[in-house]
Amino acid sequence: MEPIRLGMVGGGQGSFIGAVHRIAARMDGHFRLVAGALASDPGRARDSAAELGLEPGRSYGHFAEMAEAESSRADGIQAVSIVAPNHVHAPAAIEFLRRGIHVICDKPLTATLDEAEALVAVAQTSRARFILTHNYTGYPLVRQAREMVTQGKIGTLRLVQVEYLQDWLTDAVESQGVKQAEWRSDPARAGLGGALGDIGTHAHNLAGFVTGLAVESLAADIQSFVPGRRLDDNAHVLLRYPGGVRGTLLCSQIAPGRENGLAIRIFGDAGGLEWHQQRPDALWYSPYGQPTQVLTRMGPGTGQTAAAASRVPAGHPEGYLEAFANIYADAAAALRTGVSPALLPGLEDGVAGMRFVAACVTSSRQNSAWVTP
Amino acid sequence: MEPIRLGMVGGGQGSFIGAVHRIAARMDGHFRLVAGALASDPGRARDSAAELGLEPGRSYGHFAEMAEAESSRADGIQAVSIVAPNHVHAPAAIEFLRRGIHVICDKPLTATLDEAEALVAVAQTSRARFILTHNYTGYPLVRQAREMVTQGKIGTLRLVQVEYLQDWLTDAVESQGVKQAEWRSDPARAGLGGALGDIGTHAHNLAGFVTGLAVESLAADIQSFVPGRRLDDNAHVLLRYPGGVRGTLLCSQIAPGRENGLAIRIFGDAGGLEWHQQRPDALWYSPYGQPTQVLTRMGPGTGQTAAAASRVPAGHPEGYLEAFANIYADAAAALRTGVSPALLPGLEDGVAGMRFVAACVTSSRQNSAWVTP
Amino acid sequence: MEPIRLGMVGGGQGSFIGAVHRIAARMDGHFRLVAGALASDPGRARDSAAELGLEPGRSYGHFAEMAEAESSRADGIQAVSIVAPNHVHAPAAIEFLRRGIHVICDKPLTATLDEAEALVAVAQTSRARFILTHNYTGYPLVRQAREMVTQGKIGTLRLVQVEYLQDWLTDAVESQGVKQAEWRSDPARAGLGGALGDIGTHAHNLAGFVTGLAVESLAADIQSFVPGRRLDDNAHVLLRYPGGVRGTLLCSQIAPGRENGLAIRIFGDAGGLEWHQQRPDALWYSPYGQPTQVLTRMGPGTGQTAAAASRVPAGHPEGYLEAFANIYADAAAALRTGVSPALLPGLEDGVAGMRFVAACVTSSRQNSAWVTP
Amino acid sequence: MEPIRLGMVGGGQGSFIGAVHRIAARMDGHFRLVAGALASDPGRARDSAAELGLEPGRSYGHFAEMAEAESSRADGIQAVSIVAPNHVHAPAAIEFLRRGIHVICDKPLTATLDEAEALVAVAQTSRARFILTHNYTGYPLVRQAREMVTQGKIGTLRLVQVEYLQDWLTDAVESQGVKQAEWRSDPARAGLGGALGDIGTHAHNLAGFVTGLAVESLAADIQSFVPGRRLDDNAHVLLRYPGGVRGTLLCSQIAPGRENGLAIRIFGDAGGLEWHQQRPDALWYSPYGQPTQVLTRMGPGTGQTAAAASRVPAGHPEGYLEAFANIYADAAAALRTGVSPALLPGLEDGVAGMRFVAACVTSSRQNSAWVTP
Repeated sequence: MEPIRLGMVGGGQGSFIGAVHRIAARMDGHFRLVAGALASDPGRARDSAAELGLEPGRSYGHFAEMAEAESSRADGIQAVSIVAPNHVHAPAAIEFLRRGIHVICDKPLTATLDEAEALVAVAQTSRARFILTHNYTGYPLVRQAREMVTQGKIGTLRLVQVEYLQDWLTDAVESQGVKQAEWRSDPARAGLGGALGDIGTHAHNLAGFVTGLAVESLAADIQSFVPGRRLDDNAHVLLRYPGGVRGTLLCSQIAPGRENGLAIRIFGDAGGLEWHQQRPDALWYSPYGQPTQVLTRMGPGTGQTAAAASRVPAGHPEGYLEAFANIYADAAAALRTGVSPALLPGLEDGVAGMRFVAACVTSSRQNSAWVTP
Repeated sequence: MEPIRLGMVGGGQGSFIGAVHRIAARMDGHFRLVAGALASDPGRARDSAAELGLEPGRSYGHFAEMAEAESSRADGIQAVSIVAPNHVHAPAAIEFLRRGIHVICDKPLTATLDEAEALVAVAQTSRARFILTHNYTGYPLVRQAREMVTQGKIGTLRLVQVEYLQDWLTDAVESQGVKQAEWRSDPARAGLGGALGDIGTHAHNLAGFVTGLAVESLAADIQSFVPGRRLDDNAHVLLRYPGGVRGTLLCSQIAPGRENGLAIRIFGDAGGLEWHQQRPDALWYSPYGQPTQVLTRMGPGTGQTAAAASRVPAGHPEGYLEAFANIYADAAAALRTGVSPALLPGLEDGVAGMRFVAACVTSSRQNSAWVTP
Repeated sequence: MEPIRLGMVGGGQGSFIGAVHRIAARMDGHFRLVAGALASDPGRARDSAAELGLEPGRSYGHFAEMAEAESSRADGIQAVSIVAPNHVHAPAAIEFLRRGIHVICDKPLTATLDEAEALVAVAQTSRARFILTHNYTGYPLVRQAREMVTQGKIGTLRLVQVEYLQDWLTDAVESQGVKQAEWRSDPARAGLGGALGDIGTHAHNLAGFVTGLAVESLAADIQSFVPGRRLDDNAHVLLRYPGGVRGTLLCSQIAPGRENGLAIRIFGDAGGLEWHQQRPDALWYSPYGQPTQVLTRMGPGTGQTAAAASRVPAGHPEGYLEAFANIYADAAAALRTGVSPALLPGLEDGVAGMRFVAACVTSSRQNSAWVTP
Repeated sequence: MEPIRLGMVGGGQGSFIGAVHRIAARMDGHFRLVAGALASDPGRARDSAAELGLEPGRSYGHFAEMAEAESSRADGIQAVSIVAPNHVHAPAAIEFLRRGIHVICDKPLTATLDEAEALVAVAQTSRARFILTHNYTGYPLVRQAREMVTQGKIGTLRLVQVEYLQDWLTDAVESQGVKQAEWRSDPARAGLGGALGDIGTHAHNLAGFVTGLAVESLAADIQSFVPGRRLDDNAHVLLRYPGGVRGTLLCSQIAPGRENGLAIRIFGDAGGLEWHQQRPDALWYSPYGQPTQVLTRMGPGTGQTAAAASRVPAGHPEGYLEAFANIYADAAAALRTGVSPALLPGLEDGVAGMRFVAACVTSSRQNSAWVTP
């Protein structure tokens, strides 16, 4: 099958997530990067494009320019990956959606809830699709966990405890020239949430994905521990879900020793499940009253859903890039068939994430009052 | 050295914690059990005493009887272990303290805060000591962690995240003849707190022990998931400590797969520490910017405090009973020298625990408002 | 940079390793698959090629045909991946090397030592390169371990203990239609070694790669546990290296619960190192007399070599495919620059592997006598 | 029940294992230490006895003196624990057995095979019992593993892989004043084996205990890595058991980072089992074709045998001392009832261990020839 022609907004030299998207797009041969507005600085944009082997004429100085030029080419891009800072997501996505170019956008959806709503309005009238890379839902055993919940393997759900701990913002690296940290701690570019927007949204999304439940209300206590930091770098959140399900969400970027510690555990009246992103090929399943089982990706006890998201057998570790590539593979399927795979994250997930961040900020300002997202 | 003569209140046949106290008291040869009021039922009291080889004349039907009889013997008990249900703690302790007999009491301190205050009043005028078996502080690496905090190994503390998860009350076993569960879920015998009193107090105490900090205020969301249960079986609590330190405490007795999952992790601006009760001979230490180290009991990198609480070298696992015995060893030292070892838990810890439970209940009734314990 | 044009021998429908090579070749954009002799059966070859989107004219029925046709095209393949059963390696490689087409070949080198020697003879006179995909050496922390040995971090080496345990041949699946198992247990196609050839060679290579040492002599006890199996499915091997270094190598394909359990630990007079393929982003480093450290890929304490073989930061798991892609990336560098990266496995490694297998078989036939490979 | 009156040979100040035996003897109240010949040096013997609170008149300068004196007292010792260096085991045990005093002896049985045979001869004519503290068989989950083998849970056994790795002899500490190391590396006191005698015998015994099999022949490669060391500090051994079962045994005291790394894994045609001494409350069970289960002591899936050897429920870690105490508890039962519990190690185990060490040494001298123990 011919690869889908892909453009990219952001992701130039020095970007972490841009390279991730490119590998994920390429891994299964579904996409070919042919154009880019890779950086706001024209020189860096050009250099980045050259490094990636783009035709010089398809390296653009601005996403709007790219949208216009590419939409008028016969061989123009069919989809665009938006991997720029949060405040660029909405204007860029709108630009491409209006021209019928599919959008694959990094999370969080936008910098503000207003932008999110504007984007939704445009998306609803576009013939193009909008896909949000909540990449952790691409892990085969995350999908396995979701399926087991649906199948009743843990009975009636009672508790959801999710966390996402990192340590890379333990110091004020945003004022020490770390580009990744700079925009993420700048309200103008990141939006309302710091850690909440960057990783809290992933934790929130993961909990929703695995359980199938939306947060009913939350009570948050958020902090900025590092002196001078303008956005939160830590959040402790109590969660209430429909049906009396209760939960907690912890996120932090100041937890020394935690590299990318996304983890979830859920407990029902018939069993428990636990998964850790840093050991993604294992899923701990504790049917109540029986020994805990270590389910492995494509090992005994895991099913077709996990297998369909796998490339190599049990014992051959897959990781972050493969999970990310699963989102791209599903995106490709959606773009080609016109039908979104059931598990593909999109606008709704993005809006829910934005509401989650806003609710946390509101709750925390109200001294941890319960707030409906 | 002659062993200290010990009596016991509660702990007859069918009791879990009574046997634990007896082994802990005996392990290092510091105590000898010579008398008991081992059960409220006279027959069971007698049978239990016989099984333990007590002289028939020193098996009593009631603690008051034992207090009176033993205090008038030349070879009477010098100390008593109180391991009966919570509501017995205060009256029994008061009885012995009034007669100058030292008290080693299981936690929580009492069933109610009123009882706790009454007990404190008596204890303050007694020449005898009161020791509370917050046994988890007896683990060598818990003491190591406390010492490292004091030494500034993790810098200025920021986060305290403690949890205690079990699964034995996932079903309504209290109505299926499980004695342990019966009294623990009966407000008249257990007091205000279910899981909170039984294990939440341990988690609360552990956090305070390791960090040296007292909770300033808390916001709790507590639940009784099992139909018909009259006390909480799960609690999610946000914590605020002095100096802007923030924390969370989760406790649950309905988390399938979790046997006795007490764990703590703390993060400062210079490092992090993590410890799990089910793997007590390891302490994960993450100095910021350096690789995580696995400190082991009596292994390289641990100090004199941990060694003093150890019996066998690194790699020879010590466990729950050894940690418990460390409390008894410290108690023996206190009784013999008249000076309490710095780490020995007592009345203050007990009262703090009671206030913690009461504050959680109050907060939860006020829809998770912040409450000062 | 333009991708290198790649052909493939073997790897059609039903092949595990063919898909792995294709993803590895594509992941970093260094290669583009344009031709194939994907299966010995013409229909399956054609179907496989169509599935992969090869031009119909570049799907060949036999590798010799492909070598001839492609070498006469201006846009013919520059390199070929040989992923067919072992007995095809030598004839195919020779065919391509003779025409100046670079060869990237799966291990073991060949089915027999004679074939290996014939291949070496041809390779020495070819202008094309021969690369062997000992893919486990592509793991960043394996390279880190090697570097630490060189840097003297564990002092003078004393012990090398390597193992590779799997369970997929616990039953006689070769007679139950499992294609992967069929040829691997057929001496005519697999060669002298069963488990030894399939995974023992990996373990042997890994030990040599990390330590920089070649086995001086070995004593082996090999078995075929499954009734009717014609090649070994388990081997226990004692190893002697120069300088008094001693070791063991265990390999098995009948160890229930072990999915792909390749692991190595080495001990010197100043420290130890341990690595497990199923958790490849961690390397345990025990400097003697200090706490064990958990080194992570791109985390504190790992260096430039590991970073150069990484795509995403610490905490974002990389796995089997990324390690495999590192071999392809190094191969691309070698083909483009004409200079092989230091760590790229080739003919010598392949011959050493063949000698290792032959020596194990000889030793075992001589009741575990010491044999020089 | 009255405690059994116990004496001790060796175990004075500075001894590690003496304190272990005393705690193990006391933990369940089965024994009371009343006499001792605690050290070869009279002053140290006296001081040690005083420290332990023995009556001055029952601290002896020599075991022979103790045997004589105690056997003529009405309240004399009923059993003696021999915890002196290996070369003392036989003469001391013989002395007590001849007088009808039960012997509880540390391993290895003796320093030499001749001594072992002499001891057996005496024991056979004594009315007293001889118990060998192969303490690792006291772990509840080791007994569980044995039971599961018997029950056929892993089918027909194929592989036995056992190892025991430590690091405390990485340097020549025997010449740096470390008493434990001095005698253990002195052939006159330790016997034929260094690491082999000290820990290899444990590994050998554990394998036999769990599988119920005796080694048929072995091929060993043993080394003394530390310059000047007179006994082995490392051994690599191939094992053959009856019925085609194959195995390996590795033991080392020069493996930096390994504190007390005794571990066993066994594989049959229907499943595998794995256990690690440093995490003794978990047993990994892999029924072939099903997910691996983590069995825990007294958790779901473990049976009556493990429960009978447990004191506290699942999740409350038991360790080395509890396992050791299980041997003493079984010994007490044997002495009181006259019937040895099935699992209690004795003379036969001791002789098998001595034969194992001798066979390893012989094999290694014959360049790893197969030798029948």
